[in-house]
Amino acid sequence: MAPIILVTGGARSGKSSHAEARTRAFPGERIYLATSRVYDDEMRDRIDRHIADRGAGWTTIEEPVNLPAVLDQTDGRGPRLVDCLTLWLSNLMLDGRDWEPAAQCLIETLSRQTSPVILVSNEVGMGIVPENALARAFRDAQGWLNQRVAVIADEVQFVVAGLPLQVKGPPQL
Amino acid sequence: MAPIILVTGGARSGKSSHAEARTRAFPGERIYLATSRVYDDEMRDRIDRHIADRGAGWTTIEEPVNLPAVLDQTDGRGPRLVDCLTLWLSNLMLDGRDWEPAAQCLIETLSRQTSPVILVSNEVGMGIVPENALARAFRDAQGWLNQRVAVIADEVQFVVAGLPLQVKGPPQL
Amino acid sequence: MAPIILVTGGARSGKSSHAEARTRAFPGERIYLATSRVYDDEMRDRIDRHIADRGAGWTTIEEPVNLPAVLDQTDGRGPRLVDCLTLWLSNLMLDGRDWEPAAQCLIETLSRQTSPVILVSNEVGMGIVPENALARAFRDAQGWLNQRVAVIADEVQFVVAGLPLQVKGPPQL
Repeated sequence: MAPIILVTGGARSGKSSHAEARTRAFPGERIYLATSRVYDDEMRDRIDRHIADRGAGWTTIEEPVNLPAVLDQTDGRGPRLVDCLTLWLSNLMLDGRDWEPAAQCLIETLSRQTSPVILVSNEVGMGIVPENALARAFRDAQGWLNQRVAVIADEVQFVVAGLPLQVKGPPQL
Repeated sequence: MAPIILVTGGARSGKSSHAEARTRAFPGERIYLATSRVYDDEMRDRIDRHIADRGAGWTTIEEPVNLPAVLDQTDGRGPRLVDCLTLWLSNLMLDGRDWEPAAQCLIETLSRQTSPVILVSNEVGMGIVPENALARAFRDAQGWLNQRVAVIADEVQFVVAGLPLQVKGPPQL
Repeated sequence: MAPIILVTGGARSGKSSHAEARTRAFPGERIYLATSRVYDDEMRDRIDRHIADRGAGWTTIEEPVNLPAVLDQTDGRGPRLVDCLTLWLSNLMLDGRDWEPAAQCLIETLSRQTSPVILVSNEVGMGIVPENALARAFRDAQGWLNQRVAVIADEVQFVVAGLPLQVKGPPQL
């Protein structure tokens, strides 16, 4: 089976850059699966800048919700970088969808991939308990999802100040 | 002396499951010290579910405040899992009690235990400074308590996505 | 070149104590660079207590904004403990200054130091996305600054419950 790599950390901790570097190390077509929703021109510009920053050699697919389907469709072509699970989960919850079966479907989909998948996710549970009920539900769901992905992942990295701590898998050089 | 193990991490990081696994590895009666307060039927149901999830072989004691006394009373019977220090501290502060002598008493009590104690606690200080003054006081107290327990602990684990990083004590297999 | 050490972690995680211990291990005059602003008598008392706590053998310099200049002025005298980057960045942003060139200037200044610099900084991006726009901008800036300092640092420690995890540099005994 192809490796599944989970890259987690705080906001602006350097998760995406690290995940990109890991993705580049695999052969084949590099596919960037962007889960962010484009709400306005500012966000459109930001995404376009990110695409330009990654440079040539990447295929970008924008899919805010049907992530498992896109993983199955792109399997066999090369490594897929999912950026990020936090936005995907947030899209599901803001749409009022039942996120648990969707998360279960994602886990099953990941388990059958033959090309690598590198997933970026956020740590959101190390602050004070949020007063907002949806925020509390979200941080519970995010923590649960990170644990579930970590179980099937071959490697898990926790990124601090741009530096990856290996929490699962063989030590990195 | 019996080992003292501190298991810390964010919300839904898998701290409790890891702490349960560590507790199961010790011989003797397994005692679960629940510090949560039961405010309503929903919470009662949730606690009863947790008790059922742990399965047979656990004695559950609910004690939101007098944790040191219960530790002394149960010493000698087997490993005690304290879940969690964050709720205990929160109960003290919401009651308007002076938490510092209570925390000092807990440290002294832990130091004299002859049966193992596994303590679950939360990381709450890695978000933006809270606007609420009580929340700021709480995160300061929680950080201080975690440091104090860590000083006397034989092992400290920081759990990320269900995976324990050993921050004190011998490397785990 | 003299070592640059970044000590990061949550609020009340024991970052400052660890950074002080690292600073004490270097020869020469120990210089404490406090970046906090003194808004009132309570803060003045708190700072004076901190100065007393550190004991003799420290020179304290209070500088909330012009950190690079003070680093250059004190170079050659001994190790400098900067406590902390989070307050420095916060001062810049609350003043409405353009923090990016200031951060760039800090990085360049650090790179030319001949005496050690130990920098304390906070992890602020592991909670729920803040509703406040300035708080979001701040956590982005803080994450970016931590990454930039980590690139040029010889060592980076992430402190949990008073215990340093080495994320960059040789393993610590």
